[in-house]
Amino acid sequence: MRPRARKTPPLGIAIDPTGAAPLHRQIGEQLRRAILERRLAPGTKLPSSRLMATELDCARGTVLLAIDQLIAEGYLVTQVGSGISVAANLPDEMLVSPGVDGPPAGSAADAPILSRRTIDLLATGLSPQAPFGDPAIAFPLGQPDRDAFPYRLWAKLLEQEWRKPTWQVAGAPHPFGHPGLREAIANYLGVARGFTCDARAIIVTSGLRQSIATLARMVLDAGDKAWIEDPGFRGTREGLAAADVRAVPVPIDASGFSVEAALELAPDARLAIVAPSHQFPLGTVLGLQRRLELLSWAERTRSWIVEDDFDGEYRYSGRPLAPLRALDRSGRVAYLGSFSKLLFPTLRLSFLALPPSLVEAAEKIMVGVSPRASLLGQGALARFISEGHFAAHLRRTRLLYASRQEALIASAERHLAGLLEIAPDPAGMHVIARPHADIASTFDDVAAVAAAAAASVSVASLSACYAGAHKERGLILGYAGTPEVEIERAIARLQTALRNLY
Amino acid sequence: MRPRARKTPPLGIAIDPTGAAPLHRQIGEQLRRAILERRLAPGTKLPSSRLMATELDCARGTVLLAIDQLIAEGYLVTQVGSGISVAANLPDEMLVSPGVDGPPAGSAADAPILSRRTIDLLATGLSPQAPFGDPAIAFPLGQPDRDAFPYRLWAKLLEQEWRKPTWQVAGAPHPFGHPGLREAIANYLGVARGFTCDARAIIVTSGLRQSIATLARMVLDAGDKAWIEDPGFRGTREGLAAADVRAVPVPIDASGFSVEAALELAPDARLAIVAPSHQFPLGTVLGLQRRLELLSWAERTRSWIVEDDFDGEYRYSGRPLAPLRALDRSGRVAYLGSFSKLLFPTLRLSFLALPPSLVEAAEKIMVGVSPRASLLGQGALARFISEGHFAAHLRRTRLLYASRQEALIASAERHLAGLLEIAPDPAGMHVIARPHADIASTFDDVAAVAAAAAASVSVASLSACYAGAHKERGLILGYAGTPEVEIERAIARLQTALRNLY
Repeated sequence: MRPRARKTPPLGIAIDPTGAAPLHRQIGEQLRRAILERRLAPGTKLPSSRLMATELDCARGTVLLAIDQLIAEGYLVTQVGSGISVAANLPDEMLVSPGVDGPPAGSAADAPILSRRTIDLLATGLSPQAPFGDPAIAFPLGQPDRDAFPYRLWAKLLEQEWRKPTWQVAGAPHPFGHPGLREAIANYLGVARGFTCDARAIIVTSGLRQSIATLARMVLDAGDKAWIEDPGFRGTREGLAAADVRAVPVPIDASGFSVEAALELAPDARLAIVAPSHQFPLGTVLGLQRRLELLSWAERTRSWIVEDDFDGEYRYSGRPLAPLRALDRSGRVAYLGSFSKLLFPTLRLSFLALPPSLVEAAEKIMVGVSPRASLLGQGALARFISEGHFAAHLRRTRLLYASRQEALIASAERHLAGLLEIAPDPAGMHVIARPHADIASTFDDVAAVAAAAAASVSVASLSACYAGAHKERGLILGYAGTPEVEIERAIARLQTALRNLY
Repeated sequence: MRPRARKTPPLGIAIDPTGAAPLHRQIGEQLRRAILERRLAPGTKLPSSRLMATELDCARGTVLLAIDQLIAEGYLVTQVGSGISVAANLPDEMLVSPGVDGPPAGSAADAPILSRRTIDLLATGLSPQAPFGDPAIAFPLGQPDRDAFPYRLWAKLLEQEWRKPTWQVAGAPHPFGHPGLREAIANYLGVARGFTCDARAIIVTSGLRQSIATLARMVLDAGDKAWIEDPGFRGTREGLAAADVRAVPVPIDASGFSVEAALELAPDARLAIVAPSHQFPLGTVLGLQRRLELLSWAERTRSWIVEDDFDGEYRYSGRPLAPLRALDRSGRVAYLGSFSKLLFPTLRLSFLALPPSLVEAAEKIMVGVSPRASLLGQGALARFISEGHFAAHLRRTRLLYASRQEALIASAERHLAGLLEIAPDPAGMHVIARPHADIASTFDDVAAVAAAAAASVSVASLSACYAGAHKERGLILGYAGTPEVEIERAIARLQTALRNLY
């Protein structure tokens, strides 16, 4: 059977009984448009609702619903004894010529006016390849294995947590986060990191930027300076910028961050942000002497240290040094960790362990300290940690990633000889590939990244991690999220891409 | 049986086999402290590990683990033939007098140095009553009923969504949000709000502030001006501030926001943020004439409108006017909605429907537009909407809240005569209580809020919603989250509290 044909009754109204919108809304929408486009001039008297219903082949009540709505909106007016007519006082500029339908087409004069900052952003060509949905398997940075996380268990924990949540979870959470999660993190720090930390000092955040911005806002004023490592993680600078704090990049040397070098650049800095257990991206481990100097500086000048332990869980050989926080006797170290890189990226839960001396003030200004991290997964994560699943997941993935790094280095020795050299890193989720001496003088890591991307291999540029003028060139390859079979394939492709350049 | 007694062996080390930390960590921690506190002077030779193990009554391997760690950290050094000794080169300033344990106690000189902005924030006395955990049932603002939401169903949806998530959900989401949720929101806007909107134009955000900041950053530069309604919602100003846009409060009159008044205050503003369907907090509905004038202004000056439809779902009588967005023929209106007030507060999912003309640019700068909302609940919310649970929940709560408003007004008539007058509001989740003529001249709504809070009744001050000099005084009572039995009890308490003042 054919669907009922569209009717074309008075006033140019056509309704479609098979359409998604209710009939009265279709009628109202078209009457409104007819009025705005002057097909129904101000003052025009409408046909009776009975007549309109007959012509439109619908119930009279449907027409009345539409008319009531337009009366409520002021398009139509009703006068006793004379029926319903189009309002006389609609502003002229709203009445357009017939035929105009929707936004005017984009001539230059009609183009949307974006802000200059948006136009600048567009000009930088950010994310030109729209890397969303299903990015390259090899070698994205900071990405864990796609299948290692126990999603079924996670789903069950979520279900159990949300079946009958307390109002503290569903409605009025503590702004520092789920109490169970803060407790679980504090316990975990004691067992795995060797320092005791009151659960009250833990603030759950949605990521590193938020952690840094929260701490920086508490202890520094707008315009104050903070030392950051150069090269370093872009998010660190963004977190400081969000708190209006000026980042002073301090070039690191072979032993990592040096207070001496930092003092020469900005003796008045009041905050140092370092990743002592595994510097990003170079992987340097800050030695004890340097750690003690940094703590001594903070104590002496009453300044602050942010210790970013972003991938401290992945150490494949050797023994991690005690965190700065464990050595901190004057309460000057804030310790940052994250779960998103360890479990799955969209989890977006990180934490900030405040120095004890800041807890009380933070609690007093808790509303003002920061936007809050989503509570949805915090209860499930608390149980994931406290019931031992987190430790088990780390053990599994530590083995997995260690063998992936080995596979990557073996594959690079087969395919990339004379092009790139990759030294093993006893920790982390990525390695640095440095140009071989033969091509080092002409090696352009930005061009190499583009050539790799054209071959569907995602690598990052080492030079892009530098804020200062001196930049080392190289590639950063994340291997944690890349299965061994993909590693071999991608390294072969990378070889071809680079051979075309060098 | 008594637990094994603590041993007090050489070097002042005591281990506790029943303690939470592993034995080797207890030993390492205490040796480190002994070194830092000079109880073990630089150069001191340690007893043999065998001897230490005997004295500590633990395995020799445990002692060796601790010693290895301290060698790795540089506290101890090993020399062939001469055993293990304390490092000689520890910086002097790290070595403290014995007895110091943890951060020094807080004398004035040692007090943590907070930033001036933090001290200012502390001085404002924000959240002095720490309203977290279990705030008053009556009459918090913007709070839905605690039990109306179907948590068991929600938990099941979460479980199903996370059992086997795609990588697009777990790992590499579209920065505008879950595709299914964006689709569900676009459909819902067509059915419930009467305008068609491409799912591509929907950005899922974590709240109004983020929605406003995202839009404002796209179309305005730092320092540009935006009109906001006065009185209004504090979050609107905060969202603009996050985008460095200057908010110009425009006093609303009985008909709501007026372009004419706004043009007098700031003719160069390029953005207007309004809540036309139900102004916050006054509940004014912007009439058609004013709506058309606003649209005309935006079209004429190529400016932008943000339409905040924060509680448009709750209309108890009358018919809502068509949204500005449905009347917008030039693509100048961004439409904002939120689910957190409708479902449960910690959901923290809102959305921004971009003007069609901005979609392409937004997609190009997607990485840069904004931090993302948590993905954890987005898939479940998509199904909650598309499977009809959202509409059913709104029908249930609309009836519930309508009767709560009636109960509140009836209770106020019984108890608050001569004190406060509450006019019914055909929409929303709160009402305004204005002082009775007898006490109007002396009524201080900030004092009234404090007196109510002392009686465990949470009301908000109307005058606090104003940015400008002219402030109307009154109280704002949220009733949606307050059961009728609580309403009666709280209104009686409010009466007592106010009678003590007036």
